[in-house]
Amino acid sequence: MEKEYTYTLEIKVRDYECDAQGIVNNANYQHYFEYARHEFLEYAGCPFAEIRKMGIEPVVARIEIDYKSPLHGGEKCLCRLNAKREGIKFVFYEDIYRMGDGRLCTSAKVTTVCLRDGRPVKGDELAGKLGQYLTE
Amino acid sequence: MEKEYTYTLEIKVRDYECDAQGIVNNANYQHYFEYARHEFLEYAGCPFAEIRKMGIEPVVARIEIDYKSPLHGGEKCLCRLNAKREGIKFVFYEDIYRMGDGRLCTSAKVTTVCLRDGRPVKGDELAGKLGQYLTE
Amino acid sequence: MEKEYTYTLEIKVRDYECDAQGIVNNANYQHYFEYARHEFLEYAGCPFAEIRKMGIEPVVARIEIDYKSPLHGGEKCLCRLNAKREGIKFVFYEDIYRMGDGRLCTSAKVTTVCLRDGRPVKGDELAGKLGQYLTE
Amino acid sequence: MEKEYTYTLEIKVRDYECDAQGIVNNANYQHYFEYARHEFLEYAGCPFAEIRKMGIEPVVARIEIDYKSPLHGGEKCLCRLNAKREGIKFVFYEDIYRMGDGRLCTSAKVTTVCLRDGRPVKGDELAGKLGQYLTE
Repeated sequence: MEKEYTYTLEIKVRDYECDAQGIVNNANYQHYFEYARHEFLEYAGCPFAEIRKMGIEPVVARIEIDYKSPLHGGEKCLCRLNAKREGIKFVFYEDIYRMGDGRLCTSAKVTTVCLRDGRPVKGDELAGKLGQYLTE
Repeated sequence: MEKEYTYTLEIKVRDYECDAQGIVNNANYQHYFEYARHEFLEYAGCPFAEIRKMGIEPVVARIEIDYKSPLHGGEKCLCRLNAKREGIKFVFYEDIYRMGDGRLCTSAKVTTVCLRDGRPVKGDELAGKLGQYLTE
Repeated sequence: MEKEYTYTLEIKVRDYECDAQGIVNNANYQHYFEYARHEFLEYAGCPFAEIRKMGIEPVVARIEIDYKSPLHGGEKCLCRLNAKREGIKFVFYEDIYRMGDGRLCTSAKVTTVCLRDGRPVKGDELAGKLGQYLTE
Repeated sequence: MEKEYTYTLEIKVRDYECDAQGIVNNANYQHYFEYARHEFLEYAGCPFAEIRKMGIEPVVARIEIDYKSPLHGGEKCLCRLNAKREGIKFVFYEDIYRMGDGRLCTSAKVTTVCLRDGRPVKGDELAGKLGQYLTE
């Protein structure tokens, strides 16, 4: 059975994102994952800029990325994600699949925390807004 | 006779700055030029962040870059510059030389303007601070 | 009368492309322009990777960019271009318009040259392939 | 007792590496970590480009990063690392400390594998060359 996701973003690899090894540089996947999270937030009705205007600064506390198969210039991929609330943390599970062969290229678990005045807060406002878009 | 410069910054090319062609990606030279300008401003006693705190937002209005010889991963280069005031503009003339053979790799003319509340201003405060570091 | 273009690419600004000034960092426009040229080449039937496989290495010899109005995180824009052959050079005229208000944000003239074994060549093969997509 | 490291690289944050939150963008730490690994390899006598010329393609299989305290534009930091061989993997333990206050900002565990013709190999040649620079 296929894995289910709350949100999917299509991304096409740009040539400048590849390095001398001819494949997407590792750090750029982190850009893709951030881009997908921010697009998801917009889709869910709370764009990143709006969250910051509420006085909440979401920050990444930890990221784990597994690199399974490299992407090349011009290839299209799908970045698919689920968001869960775990204690005061918002955790994003993100997978990138190459569109050509459906292969899983990269997986990430991104743990984020909301700060207010530099201190971690529970983020109930954000959770309230995300509501149905949070996975159990 | 060798060209004279007000400020020189040594930069070592990082592998991730190269693209699939195995050379520094064109856009990254603009990063080098910005980095050298900001280091120059710090050297001259008015760091970029301080200028912004004065309510002045320096922005690039125009950039011209000539690419003469490519840089490769691991190569060291010198980014050398002169800054001139031309009317309300601050113009930076920046040259990047490869250290190995002294060859001129890239030249830029970067025209910047100071904004206050979104409008161009004369930038007399900045000029006053830069003083002797401005070339006639 | 509106200006005519051969090719148009829609781009959405990603938050990580903005710097501490809250606007797209100047160097990233150069990434947009490169991205649009490569997409244009694919559209015209000669993807960048294919050109390189023919033993031709297209390089940027000179770029001029005018920055008129800044783009912000999340904004959509259109990067529109015309390509011309001028002697042995292929020159790209690229304009980026914000979609919200139709305003011209950035303009570039990008002069490229084809190298074979490190030496400039006329690029007749490329011109032949681009054919109708080159503007007089 | 202070932790010991095999290699230390000083890095100064460049303003363009910061995003609209005014701090270094998360993905850029991965650039710092890669930069430090490649400088370490050069220091240990086997530059990354040389390894690739031996027909070995080192790739990152997994990365874990803990973000503890953000870096800001202009700040200097030390990226310190140890490299260990664990089975066929080369694992890098990298810590970034702010120079101003000595605070640990970011920690990473980077698991790399050597590929030859696209298949994982034991990497004995690399291990032989790194010799004394590998930690038990």
